[in-house]
Amino acid sequence: MASGQSRFLTFESYLPDGTLDETFFKLGTRPVPRPEDGQVLLRPVGFSLDPAMRGQLSGRADFALVPPPAPGEALSGPAIGRVVESRHGDHAVGDLVSGVLDWADHAVWPRPNDWMGLTRVDPRFGKPSHAFGVYGINGVSAYFGIVEVARPRPGETVLVSAAAGSVGSLAGQIAKIHGARVIGLAGTADKRELLTSRLGFDATLDYRAADLADQLRELAPAGPDVYFDNVGGALSQLVMTQMRRPARVVECGQIATYNDNDAAWTVDIRAMHSNGLRFEGFTPALFLDEWPAAVDQLLAWVQDGRLVPLETELHGLESLPRALSGLFAGRNVGKMVVTVPE
Amino acid sequence: MASGQSRFLTFESYLPDGTLDETFFKLGTRPVPRPEDGQVLLRPVGFSLDPAMRGQLSGRADFALVPPPAPGEALSGPAIGRVVESRHGDHAVGDLVSGVLDWADHAVWPRPNDWMGLTRVDPRFGKPSHAFGVYGINGVSAYFGIVEVARPRPGETVLVSAAAGSVGSLAGQIAKIHGARVIGLAGTADKRELLTSRLGFDATLDYRAADLADQLRELAPAGPDVYFDNVGGALSQLVMTQMRRPARVVECGQIATYNDNDAAWTVDIRAMHSNGLRFEGFTPALFLDEWPAAVDQLLAWVQDGRLVPLETELHGLESLPRALSGLFAGRNVGKMVVTVPE
Repeated sequence: MASGQSRFLTFESYLPDGTLDETFFKLGTRPVPRPEDGQVLLRPVGFSLDPAMRGQLSGRADFALVPPPAPGEALSGPAIGRVVESRHGDHAVGDLVSGVLDWADHAVWPRPNDWMGLTRVDPRFGKPSHAFGVYGINGVSAYFGIVEVARPRPGETVLVSAAAGSVGSLAGQIAKIHGARVIGLAGTADKRELLTSRLGFDATLDYRAADLADQLRELAPAGPDVYFDNVGGALSQLVMTQMRRPARVVECGQIATYNDNDAAWTVDIRAMHSNGLRFEGFTPALFLDEWPAAVDQLLAWVQDGRLVPLETELHGLESLPRALSGLFAGRNVGKMVVTVPE
Repeated sequence: MASGQSRFLTFESYLPDGTLDETFFKLGTRPVPRPEDGQVLLRPVGFSLDPAMRGQLSGRADFALVPPPAPGEALSGPAIGRVVESRHGDHAVGDLVSGVLDWADHAVWPRPNDWMGLTRVDPRFGKPSHAFGVYGINGVSAYFGIVEVARPRPGETVLVSAAAGSVGSLAGQIAKIHGARVIGLAGTADKRELLTSRLGFDATLDYRAADLADQLRELAPAGPDVYFDNVGGALSQLVMTQMRRPARVVECGQIATYNDNDAAWTVDIRAMHSNGLRFEGFTPALFLDEWPAAVDQLLAWVQDGRLVPLETELHGLESLPRALSGLFAGRNVGKMVVTVPE
């Protein structure tokens, strides 16, 4: 049975507009929480870093994966934990489970008002943190976004933003599996090299290039058929001016806007109007019934070597501030995770 | 040969944000213009009133159907004219033609930098002003928007905004021809009555109703399958929260934003993201090759009595200010035109 003090990550006041840096976070200590009837106590052993965390930090309930905590309370997010004490019939000591857990050395589940379940980590996943990435919300987002929404036909050109990120790197590979020609947008030469040499992308572009529109026109004179967008903002407005009907934009995320608390998710639709674009939003929550089949397919592709899951892994609870600010600074390739040695 | 003075409509300074009213316009006089070699002189006999005129009034070149004139110069827009003098081999005195013409008693074509042609008015059109409405840009917008973009399947529910307007009244009827159930949004009881009694709409809603979302949910519990949107703005954001994948929004116009000069055509995409909506923009310019076939089909439907073209017709050049401000105030049913007796 756990006892004594336990560390947790919190903050002093909600984050204003602007860039997240590590000084926002505070490491606190508290007594190891005690599970009541119906609860379990877990040791979190892996944390997922997600753009949607930004809403929690800025106190915006409409924009957070989980309700924002009050300043001084523990942050929380998708995590994997080992059950160390159980007063819940469905979960036994030793189980490896995923759910929303406190960013802490010890976490009690369910927290008050918790609406997400605790799920046994599928042993087929191999590395447990793949429950966040390729077999988690990022992997199924890439899967449903390409397979159900974009539906690329062989020979079509698919442009992917944040192509070295967790969703983008998988979306590009899944589009390749469907016979598309895939161009990835990424911000560093290292990332772009990785996309072509390791993930089989056909071409890459530096999204910061001043002549990006010209470079894109050279690679895809008629414009891309599909733009799989994880970014939003000015980059996406520029890309849309380069596309023509019946091209489609698959809108998966808007990370470019997340540092601006007041930014509504607004998109200038003039290019959609003039160029006849189809813009389609989605979240994987719209495909819950198909989720198990998607995970089976992702597993099969990884086992066949057709899909390479990338991770950027930091170690220890104290790495979470660096990991989350690094995510917003684009310092990850693939899924950004923090793991904690057991 | 024409001689003497000729009236024209102009303005003293570009229109700021806000509502257009008749005091914006000034009626000037000028000598009857003389056609040079390659030009023709016309008596405009019909004027089309279009939301895109707003860009001309506010001096926004990016937003105007034709380049904005300087203050004091003649306004111009889509019009029909009778050729009264010709120094152009393709056009003979007496021809009835359509093109972009000055808002004036006499107009010379082509004006400097004119990029639009002069087209003989098809005698099949019957009433010449139908060249603007059902057989013009409004009619083909409705046609392509429903037939090529929305593609409603029998039994689907199509919601149309500005349903008593020129495009909306035709779009709703064309959706009916394709077997859809059609709900029209309109702002007055008279307009709503007209939609159901004369145009065969299945139901109507007052878009200003405080409980519009509830009323819509009652009529279409699963949400409309298609939203054919001529309006944009807050109304469209509300409608989008009521729709669910695989519903689609066909974006035909954004008249709600045109009174705000600085309003980019921005749309909040959160409902598209969360509800998995497909948002598709278009202009009829994307379908130029199919334009003649579309007009043939529209003619056939009108002749069969399956498509009823509506017009609001004012008379005389001096009615243009009232007609255009009336268009923005929603005082038209169907196409707003001004005709001039010959």
